[in-house]
Amino acid sequence: MVLRVGVIGGGQLARMMIPAAIRLGVEIRVLAETAHSSAELATTAVGDYRDLDTVLAFARGVDVVTFDHEHVPQDVLAALVGEDIAVRPGPDPLRYAQDKLDMRERLAELGAPQPDWATVSSAAELTAFIADHGGVVVVKTPRGGYDGKGVRVVREAADAADWLEVGAPLLVEERVGFVRELAQQVARRPSGELAVYPLVESVQREGVCAEVIAPAPHAGRIAQAAARVATSIAEGLGVTGMLAVELFETDDERILVNELAMRPHNSGHWSIEGAVTDQFEQHLRAVLDLPLGSTELRAPWTVMVNVLGGPADGDVDRSRRLALADQHAAAVHLYGKDPRPGRKIGHVTAYGEDLDDAMFVARAAAAAFD
Amino acid sequence: MVLRVGVIGGGQLARMMIPAAIRLGVEIRVLAETAHSSAELATTAVGDYRDLDTVLAFARGVDVVTFDHEHVPQDVLAALVGEDIAVRPGPDPLRYAQDKLDMRERLAELGAPQPDWATVSSAAELTAFIADHGGVVVVKTPRGGYDGKGVRVVREAADAADWLEVGAPLLVEERVGFVRELAQQVARRPSGELAVYPLVESVQREGVCAEVIAPAPHAGRIAQAAARVATSIAEGLGVTGMLAVELFETDDERILVNELAMRPHNSGHWSIEGAVTDQFEQHLRAVLDLPLGSTELRAPWTVMVNVLGGPADGDVDRSRRLALADQHAAAVHLYGKDPRPGRKIGHVTAYGEDLDDAMFVARAAAAAFD
Repeated sequence: MVLRVGVIGGGQLARMMIPAAIRLGVEIRVLAETAHSSAELATTAVGDYRDLDTVLAFARGVDVVTFDHEHVPQDVLAALVGEDIAVRPGPDPLRYAQDKLDMRERLAELGAPQPDWATVSSAAELTAFIADHGGVVVVKTPRGGYDGKGVRVVREAADAADWLEVGAPLLVEERVGFVRELAQQVARRPSGELAVYPLVESVQREGVCAEVIAPAPHAGRIAQAAARVATSIAEGLGVTGMLAVELFETDDERILVNELAMRPHNSGHWSIEGAVTDQFEQHLRAVLDLPLGSTELRAPWTVMVNVLGGPADGDVDRSRRLALADQHAAAVHLYGKDPRPGRKIGHVTAYGEDLDDAMFVARAAAAAFD
Repeated sequence: MVLRVGVIGGGQLARMMIPAAIRLGVEIRVLAETAHSSAELATTAVGDYRDLDTVLAFARGVDVVTFDHEHVPQDVLAALVGEDIAVRPGPDPLRYAQDKLDMRERLAELGAPQPDWATVSSAAELTAFIADHGGVVVVKTPRGGYDGKGVRVVREAADAADWLEVGAPLLVEERVGFVRELAQQVARRPSGELAVYPLVESVQREGVCAEVIAPAPHAGRIAQAAARVATSIAEGLGVTGMLAVELFETDDERILVNELAMRPHNSGHWSIEGAVTDQFEQHLRAVLDLPLGSTELRAPWTVMVNVLGGPADGDVDRSRRLALADQHAAAVHLYGKDPRPGRKIGHVTAYGEDLDDAMFVARAAAAAFD
């Protein structure tokens, strides 16, 4: 029998799982929200991932269910588990990727390093937290935020008045004086086997990942700490599949957990060319409980640059020709999306012995899409 | 508009073009002979590639037609060209991959190094050729042979009596005293741009490719000659897409052309991990007239071993687990085929600084399927 993996969500992460499924000789099926998604090639069902009947019908046809995103509601996930369907990661760990307040509480129990944080439900509580944290804090809606959405820098309670008005608790965090952002990925199988990727540096612009450098330069001691933190989170939460831990590095050389993602992640796209086993194949191996692959680097330096927005004239074909024509050989990955301002329509990757060279090549290839 | 490439044939070569199409952001459609082929994921039409209406209907929906195999009849190809459909490689070069007599004639015109050969239509002609070539020759049916089929070592005309009876001319070649077999791949775009891969050594067992070593060890002067020969064939025949030239290396350090393939080829599977641009992406770039990619090696040595037959008990899943569990990290590629004696159901690839190590790892991973 051919193993069948079902992916809920038809975004670029599902798309990039397809080559991995082809290599491994497993069947991949996607439940997408629209017929023409980035994962159209593997789409076997179109529907709402919040609708129990839709998700159940899809899940019954596969050996294991996994995800392109973390938005499937807990009651839907519980129903799948109730039918003995393998859901990886399971509802329990996924809760901590769905709700940032739950995440902060659980990470505190695990002793993971975090920014100072609190739950606030009123202007008075928020005002007090601001006063205790230097007059400027970060307020987050516990659910639904991504790529800078649902996150706001706040200096007085009035800045979050609209959110407070809703009446639901908000997460407030100290505004960390970080020197850079890092991401640590690990994979974990149901059997418990773990695979730890090299720590990477991620450069965010306007709340969106713009560039990733693998491995993170000058990271010696920090790299070990990041691997320990991510491993303890993967084990503590019982994650199966890929886990990405986004981290702040502070000016006093500490790391603090910013966010969690329980799926392949933008900070791991470099691994397609840069690691022996890329994050997409590793995710499939992990959720199918197959042996995990080596996470070793394939080049001293790998740089990934996102293609954001795409060509203003919409001519992706011309931009692709320009990017591919670069004699220095960046790998080009397009997601089958129409260009739109700020939209991630692809990424490019360059690698080699020299970080500056790789950076130059990757940026030049990405610039072909501007 | 999204570029659409149509592949005729649903074998493993079409299958392995899918990841390349995903990366490049082009749409891939496959015309397969059966609904459950190796390229099922991209199959949009099922039918007979010899049937003009079937092929025309498929071809009208894509920007360029290319191939998983070379068996589409010339009259069908001519009809496509007659409708201004881009067919790459075109009918003219394809003729030389379809008919070994045509190939030998054309290569002679191009001055490519070949074994001694002749057209024979009678036992008397064959007997004369045998007498002139040391008493043992190789007889080939001009069409339809592959993986050792349609090829026979012959010591007297009676050994080919059944083929001669058919009445069609046969190709007879001297039996070359070769020390090893090599393969030289090049890609060529309609614009004329060429990309030359490193020369590789291929090890055949019972007429089937068993292992490939990239680059071919100890090949200095021979490598330059092979690149020249393949380039002149690609240009002389007007090939677009990937061309594989299978070569004999003789004990007096000459190379002689054995066969041609105008598509990705088993001798190039190593390039998925071992070259900056793999042969499947390069083929798509070439037939879509996109800029060609770098053919540089990514590791000093890459070894590919075919998985032939598969596990005797049919348990591919267990074999895959064994192969993936190898701590030395061979890449595993399965084609979604049921195991059957002698059938190519996948391949494995290992790479590194040391040829013996890579060979050991690849063979061990392949052995997991025995």
